[in-house]
Amino acid sequence: MSKVRLRISMSLDGFVAGPNQSVDNPIGIGGMRLHQWAFSLAAWRSMHGLEGGEVNQSTLVVQESLANIGATVMGRNMFGGHPGPWDAGNPWNGWWGSNPPFHHPVFVLSHHARDPLQLEGGTTFTFVTDGIEAALAQARKAAAGKDVSLAGGARAAQQFLAAGLVDEMEISLAPVLLGSGERLFDRVGDNLHGLELVRTVAAPSVTHLKFARR
Amino acid sequence: MSKVRLRISMSLDGFVAGPNQSVDNPIGIGGMRLHQWAFSLAAWRSMHGLEGGEVNQSTLVVQESLANIGATVMGRNMFGGHPGPWDAGNPWNGWWGSNPPFHHPVFVLSHHARDPLQLEGGTTFTFVTDGIEAALAQARKAAAGKDVSLAGGARAAQQFLAAGLVDEMEISLAPVLLGSGERLFDRVGDNLHGLELVRTVAAPSVTHLKFARR
Repeated sequence: MSKVRLRISMSLDGFVAGPNQSVDNPIGIGGMRLHQWAFSLAAWRSMHGLEGGEVNQSTLVVQESLANIGATVMGRNMFGGHPGPWDAGNPWNGWWGSNPPFHHPVFVLSHHARDPLQLEGGTTFTFVTDGIEAALAQARKAAAGKDVSLAGGARAAQQFLAAGLVDEMEISLAPVLLGSGERLFDRVGDNLHGLELVRTVAAPSVTHLKFARR
Repeated sequence: MSKVRLRISMSLDGFVAGPNQSVDNPIGIGGMRLHQWAFSLAAWRSMHGLEGGEVNQSTLVVQESLANIGATVMGRNMFGGHPGPWDAGNPWNGWWGSNPPFHHPVFVLSHHARDPLQLEGGTTFTFVTDGIEAALAQARKAAAGKDVSLAGGARAAQQFLAAGLVDEMEISLAPVLLGSGERLFDRVGDNLHGLELVRTVAAPSVTHLKFARR
């Protein structure tokens, strides 16, 4: 069966977003510090239509995280924009512009129904209002045998982790403190549901920790 | 000047002790899971008077953490026993028996005065009631040019980190969740005071992250 693969950047003190997330600060105050390791990479830049960049020990981790993904699941907060019901007159269409870097079906967990949103490059956003297991079932079907990427944010990741639905987890540990914000493992408990550390990659400004079931 | 060096084991979710620490559970419920990586090491066993054990990638980290240490500072909770004033009739003399594995002067942060305690093998415990900077000054003097080990627990480490008094930090990240307990970085804020990730060692059941000022 296809796997559910979580990849996420986390601070040394356990945060995956800073405090006060907003349209101006999508991952909260200081949250961009979690992702500094990625921005200079050629692998990251090409995914966002940019040229140039570095190749280093993080490259294989980024390339691996993109390989064999057939669908993505994300939380409403990661899709972003605003809380509460969707604004039909001025709809929020995600952070990523008209051609998002997914190029496959994306399922957005939300409490508010909305018609699917089809953008350029093969990315469609489908809004799922009946919980993580329903979203996962739809994503698995859409992935057609490939894996499902769990893209975050914190609350979506927590729900999947607590339910034992994550098959692989790549934590990119940034050697910084945020001090406050959203923690990856809040509300998860003390059970990794069989996930074990299977690979450590030391790279500039980040340590990648891969967990899987043996 | 001699350095202040913190070495501590931390869970993936940021805890350095489990909940409900007591004489029966010195590092809290589940807290021993943080240290499983160490117990099988020859380097750890010989420090505690035991024979045999493994040599692996953790060995150099343990050996390095023991080298060039002239004194140790620890919190009252790590010295352990009970909260509140010392029981003169039945004094708690630490977890380590008559010959503790320090073999140098140890300074214990406490709110309660007590005469120094001299045990076998060169370990003396001195109780310091006037705060971390006074304890550090005494420890530096006793270390006579060698480094000062900051042994924990959580609250002592937090105070030194928040004050920017830590010069090197070796975090042994155990790939487990505790879910609750004492977090290393609570009350520390978002400032590592110039500490940067300078080495990552991937070892069985642990990832060692060394921070220092460049």
